[in-house]
Amino acid sequence: MKNIIVASTSTIHNAAYLEYLLPTLEEHFSDTKEILFIPFARPSGITHKGYTEKVATSFKKIDKKVKGLHEYEDKKKAIERAGGLFTGGGNTFLLVQQLYKYELLHVLREAIFNGVPYLGTSAGSNICGVTMQTTNDMPIVYPPSFKTLGVIPFNINPHYLDPDPNSKHMGETRETRIKEFHKFNNLPVVGLREGSWLAVKGDEIMLKGNLRARIFEQDIPPYEIESGELISFE
Amino acid sequence: MKNIIVASTSTIHNAAYLEYLLPTLEEHFSDTKEILFIPFARPSGITHKGYTEKVATSFKKIDKKVKGLHEYEDKKKAIERAGGLFTGGGNTFLLVQQLYKYELLHVLREAIFNGVPYLGTSAGSNICGVTMQTTNDMPIVYPPSFKTLGVIPFNINPHYLDPDPNSKHMGETRETRIKEFHKFNNLPVVGLREGSWLAVKGDEIMLKGNLRARIFEQDIPPYEIESGELISFE
Repeated sequence: MKNIIVASTSTIHNAAYLEYLLPTLEEHFSDTKEILFIPFARPSGITHKGYTEKVATSFKKIDKKVKGLHEYEDKKKAIERAGGLFTGGGNTFLLVQQLYKYELLHVLREAIFNGVPYLGTSAGSNICGVTMQTTNDMPIVYPPSFKTLGVIPFNINPHYLDPDPNSKHMGETRETRIKEFHKFNNLPVVGLREGSWLAVKGDEIMLKGNLRARIFEQDIPPYEIESGELISFE
Repeated sequence: MKNIIVASTSTIHNAAYLEYLLPTLEEHFSDTKEILFIPFARPSGITHKGYTEKVATSFKKIDKKVKGLHEYEDKKKAIERAGGLFTGGGNTFLLVQQLYKYELLHVLREAIFNGVPYLGTSAGSNICGVTMQTTNDMPIVYPPSFKTLGVIPFNINPHYLDPDPNSKHMGETRETRIKEFHKFNNLPVVGLREGSWLAVKGDEIMLKGNLRARIFEQDIPPYEIESGELISFE
């Protein structure tokens, strides 16, 4: 049974990396002592090693060891054997390019469907969707496809940002961008605000955290759901 | 001799479409009565026809006619015969996908190198760069390549936005995103703020408008240039 946490962000304002999620993660990863970390999105160009150490520091607080996927020659086997998985944020284009390069999407999807607990934050959440096409990131590299894990039946927009009514900036708002996506695609999009996450248990998907989430479906006005509500498009 | 206006935006706050640029455009397009408009980025999913009408309304104020490229069966010939060219904003992924689909990049580049006056705003400016990899847009469609016109020897970040020191949002700032680009690419990036544009005359590229622009080069700190200064990376 799928057991996934799809988080908007790793870090909320004025808190340490992953801090707001640690109580949740302690339960989420209760059956494993070690987490396999996928550092490929590496924010701001941090090294895989540096990123993995940062993650290890946070997970140490709940008594978990962390290994970085970059350390393994056979990355597929590493994923197959993992007791827990975490894909961190950074640049989604880079992450997806790397997952294709090492041919890891299929094995990662398999592990998640087999029930290995998975945590994604930001780019690591984007890849849980059907495609990465509602990322906010810059296309700094060219991945061979925008198709991602599809372990949830819709797309994610992490770090969802409400329009600022006082802004004089003329660039598109996030909502406008997602509407443009819906001119060419019919997948629902869940806009996850900072500090929100989806708890996926099998086919049940619940919004968690303090805030509401904004749901975008093709051809209908966007609407909000409350924390604690289930998300379903059937 | 190349004769290009590369504008951050079509529209500044509290002004009509293209209004702030009209005196400049009157001079820029002084040798032609008709502009060929490329509406393929179509913001918010507006139709090609609707977008072209919007553009025509603005250009009428300086006594220019506007035809939309979508009206032509033979789009290559339409570009070859144009006396003036304008590519409007919207979604850069969509624009680039369409330009590849109709195989127009080469003929457009040729026309610009032959001296046909060109105007780009937003997505239409992004494509003047070597690649579209510093766009802010969402990857709503998958183009066959990120390579663009390369009529200027660097990349553009339109609608450049300074970091908000009061923000509690944890998504990446624009500067952080461009720094990530430079982890994998060595092209300089010009961050054009709203209301700024580049006037390209042959190999001379001058910043215009009221604001400064922010320049990002690989491995050195970002710096500002003043309006009226030339941009060169040699």
